[in-house]
Amino acid sequence: MRQSTYLVPTLRDVPSDADIASHRLMLRAGLIRQSAAGVYSFLPIGTKVLRNIEAIVREEMDAKGAQELLMPAIQPAELWQESGRWEAYGSELMRIKDRHNRDFALGPTHEEVVTALLKADVKSYKKLPMNVYQIQAKYRDERRPRFGVLRSREFLMKDAYTFDTSFEGLDKQYEAMYDAYTKIFQRCGLDFRAVVADSGAMGGKDTHEFMVLSDVGEDTIAYSDESDFAANIEIAPVNVQYERADEEQQPLQTVDTPNVKTIEEVASYLQTSEDQLIKSLLFIVDERPVLVLVRGDHEVNDVKVKHVTDGQSVELATEEETKRYIGTTPGFVGPIGVSEEVKVLADHAVEVLVNAVCGANETDKHHKNVNPERDFSGVQYDDLRTIQEGDPSPDGKGTIQFREGIEVGHVFKLGTRYSEALGATFLDENGSDKPMVMGSYGIGVSRTLAAIIEQHHDDQGIIWPASVAPFDVHLICVQTKDDEQRQLAESLYSQLQGAGLDVLLDDRKERPGVKFNDADLLGLPIRITVGKKASEGIVELKVRKSGEMDEIASDECIEVIQERLAHL
Amino acid sequence: MRQSTYLVPTLRDVPSDADIASHRLMLRAGLIRQSAAGVYSFLPIGTKVLRNIEAIVREEMDAKGAQELLMPAIQPAELWQESGRWEAYGSELMRIKDRHNRDFALGPTHEEVVTALLKADVKSYKKLPMNVYQIQAKYRDERRPRFGVLRSREFLMKDAYTFDTSFEGLDKQYEAMYDAYTKIFQRCGLDFRAVVADSGAMGGKDTHEFMVLSDVGEDTIAYSDESDFAANIEIAPVNVQYERADEEQQPLQTVDTPNVKTIEEVASYLQTSEDQLIKSLLFIVDERPVLVLVRGDHEVNDVKVKHVTDGQSVELATEEETKRYIGTTPGFVGPIGVSEEVKVLADHAVEVLVNAVCGANETDKHHKNVNPERDFSGVQYDDLRTIQEGDPSPDGKGTIQFREGIEVGHVFKLGTRYSEALGATFLDENGSDKPMVMGSYGIGVSRTLAAIIEQHHDDQGIIWPASVAPFDVHLICVQTKDDEQRQLAESLYSQLQGAGLDVLLDDRKERPGVKFNDADLLGLPIRITVGKKASEGIVELKVRKSGEMDEIASDECIEVIQERLAHL
Repeated sequence: MRQSTYLVPTLRDVPSDADIASHRLMLRAGLIRQSAAGVYSFLPIGTKVLRNIEAIVREEMDAKGAQELLMPAIQPAELWQESGRWEAYGSELMRIKDRHNRDFALGPTHEEVVTALLKADVKSYKKLPMNVYQIQAKYRDERRPRFGVLRSREFLMKDAYTFDTSFEGLDKQYEAMYDAYTKIFQRCGLDFRAVVADSGAMGGKDTHEFMVLSDVGEDTIAYSDESDFAANIEIAPVNVQYERADEEQQPLQTVDTPNVKTIEEVASYLQTSEDQLIKSLLFIVDERPVLVLVRGDHEVNDVKVKHVTDGQSVELATEEETKRYIGTTPGFVGPIGVSEEVKVLADHAVEVLVNAVCGANETDKHHKNVNPERDFSGVQYDDLRTIQEGDPSPDGKGTIQFREGIEVGHVFKLGTRYSEALGATFLDENGSDKPMVMGSYGIGVSRTLAAIIEQHHDDQGIIWPASVAPFDVHLICVQTKDDEQRQLAESLYSQLQGAGLDVLLDDRKERPGVKFNDADLLGLPIRITVGKKASEGIVELKVRKSGEMDEIASDECIEVIQERLAHL
Repeated sequence: MRQSTYLVPTLRDVPSDADIASHRLMLRAGLIRQSAAGVYSFLPIGTKVLRNIEAIVREEMDAKGAQELLMPAIQPAELWQESGRWEAYGSELMRIKDRHNRDFALGPTHEEVVTALLKADVKSYKKLPMNVYQIQAKYRDERRPRFGVLRSREFLMKDAYTFDTSFEGLDKQYEAMYDAYTKIFQRCGLDFRAVVADSGAMGGKDTHEFMVLSDVGEDTIAYSDESDFAANIEIAPVNVQYERADEEQQPLQTVDTPNVKTIEEVASYLQTSEDQLIKSLLFIVDERPVLVLVRGDHEVNDVKVKHVTDGQSVELATEEETKRYIGTTPGFVGPIGVSEEVKVLADHAVEVLVNAVCGANETDKHHKNVNPERDFSGVQYDDLRTIQEGDPSPDGKGTIQFREGIEVGHVFKLGTRYSEALGATFLDENGSDKPMVMGSYGIGVSRTLAAIIEQHHDDQGIIWPASVAPFDVHLICVQTKDDEQRQLAESLYSQLQGAGLDVLLDDRKERPGVKFNDADLLGLPIRITVGKKASEGIVELKVRKSGEMDEIASDECIEVIQERLAHL
């Protein structure tokens, strides 16, 4: 491709609204342009990388026997009503009415459509297991689209769905997809972790997120410094054997704590440490009050509260609700003497406290010398807090560290959630009707592109892994007015293409500095510069990743390039 | 791919709602399933054919230096308002509101988005010419979706846009795209014509439709039986030198024609022929009355009326409007004595009539012995009728014939319609600002698939051209319970795949008749049957297209298949 008429508009300045590296570089290197908030066009060089990632995805999916299909983006509302997600999905679901005023969803995912499809055409165990996938634009009306294509409203996704006769079959397919995803992200040159995650609104159990480790990201990953344990902190279990302090229990006391509300203020006012305090937070779980206790230096994990209570909706109580159920204002809430209407849950760390402090359910008052085993009644203890850096790893090996992560893939065991709701059954070997056992698997293709840049760049620009690079070689003609340089560049352009290399020829009438800066910005693996030594048949080869430069004979170019590419 | 777990649900019965061959066969052979009216899923075998067509499209587009990009399907309403199409496109444009109540269109085409894109990033003549394209789902809320994917509401399209500094440049790019389209449809095995067409709502001049000749279709093509002239009958010019009858003019007469209204009734009642009658139809063109006269055996072409009057909207007048402007009811309308407010246009064929008949603008009365050159005043003569079978070809060579056509491609010269509306200008060599000169080019990818089937099938099923076939070979194991047959089939399956052939292995436990019928229905170019002679190493080869069958040694399979495929 000739750069002179190629739509790759590089920008010298950093766009002001882009605050992460991949977003800045995708704009500066002319990969994307914004069309509306969270809606982007991929320019040719961005599109080439998307196609390369898609090809890797297809190869690894096909290798597992998955079948590519193509479902429509506009989906009848009836299917979403049957599954119950028409309401549940909320305002992230883009909705559309056709000319007959019928409701449709713009698909954020395709569980309903694919289940209806297989329900109609797969009736017998003989056709199962089956794994179908597609690569397609998806829609999610994000409240705050940001980070460029990392969180956009229209994005490219590979979604796959498996159908089995049994949960054992599902386990196997889940393993196969887990393996395919591992290979895909490895081939994309990504440093990632498969982390245990919450299944959220998808309605399944057993789920892993494939997280690209990064300095930015919307998820925090807790991982062990000594094992391969990794989990989203939303879900990471805490596995600590707390020990009871060897101290005598003192009589319970009520003390004045005028206008002293936060954990920090209480600890300081009562001259004790935060880990001697009990934090009491009132939640409303499916319209019922639930008081949750954790140690003062810990944080309540509402995903765990949701699981322990088997609740659908978990919200922190308002001040008004706190008054109604507890009789005091937040800041002075505690578990002693609350009405039976309020369920009390406490984290394991609370159970072993001796002579601790908690709110007294009266404005400006706290209890001192609180001993849960003596003073609390009807409390259910469980793992309710968020894991912290420095905690022992739940698998017993090593210590927990945190990293930010970009979610590029997600594998779910759905079970029969959708097949039961939509009636997708099959006849088993004994002729009885059973719901299909399903799995769901997604890869954010456009997001993977951004994640690759997030991990592969320097101050000068992008550094593409050869596996997904938009071109193999950036061939630069320093002086297009110089006949010898131009002729050698043109001749190399033909030769390299003839050898199967994908080449971007910088044939622009620009200053050499502009060309070299653009080459670093675009980040193709190999740069070949045809300059002053063209008359001697000598060109310069630069490896973008290492910065290593060599002068080589132009007639050795192909060999040397192929050899270098094999290691990039 | 193993058919036992492949999602290719063949149907024995003809679906009742499918009334054309391609729609029936796409349902029966398991290529598509309907998800809502005009909204389809492509199952794996349909998706494979789409991908094959896409690959051909990409190769031919890339060969012309076109650059692939990917624009979003959701498009800001502001862009459509700037171009004036937000209103003009009417209810076929699917509209969507986001969570902030902002309006978006679901793109039926991308002139606005691509123009805005190039406006922002291409400022100089040095970057031009440029040709960008994408392959993407498009949306059109058809009033009557029908014929399966031939007229659906979500469909796959390749759309391309060219940008030039001059109209001469546009002409060159138009030629290049015309040539690419010709190659694409040839490679898809289609019998088609590039026909001159009306540019409709696209707002350009010079446009060709690529029409696949067919027995069904929504367009009628007029073509010459002796030259390559072909045009949509909407637009085909009539180039006939009418001769005046050698007859004496008689005095104008008014006769009673009680309740005699239609051309047929009048001709019969007055014992004359239809070609001696003048048909007078009142139209409302942009709110002004226009009376159009054609010969009784001809039809008014309203596209021509639109062009001749330079009108935006051309509608046949209602009975009420006819009364208001002419003073009589339709059936008795004529040009003699109409008020000056009514513009009168007549087709060339009317001008030469001698002693003809027309309505007398009075209920139950007609004029006889009408001689336009004597009796009419203020009439403008032009080409206003639709071409007919038997007319001489407008290029002077041969006679016009009609065929139905399926539009699979369309090339337009847009000129500066969009660049001026959206302000997409460039600096020319002299530093002055000029609007880019644009072209727009579309291929219906999913529609092309249906058109291929429409031209390549028989009573048994589809007959895929090898270039787009979902698999090269259908390998059938007649008795899967027979060890020798199964082993030979499995061994051939590996060998053929190893030789780069794409093979569908029928490993189902079905009766041989079912397998053979499905093979004919699916229509893969070559069928290899492993049956009773497996023990002798002999298999049967059948060419789907010709029906030709041979027994061959299994170890010669690869060679023979490759040789046959080269001719299919």
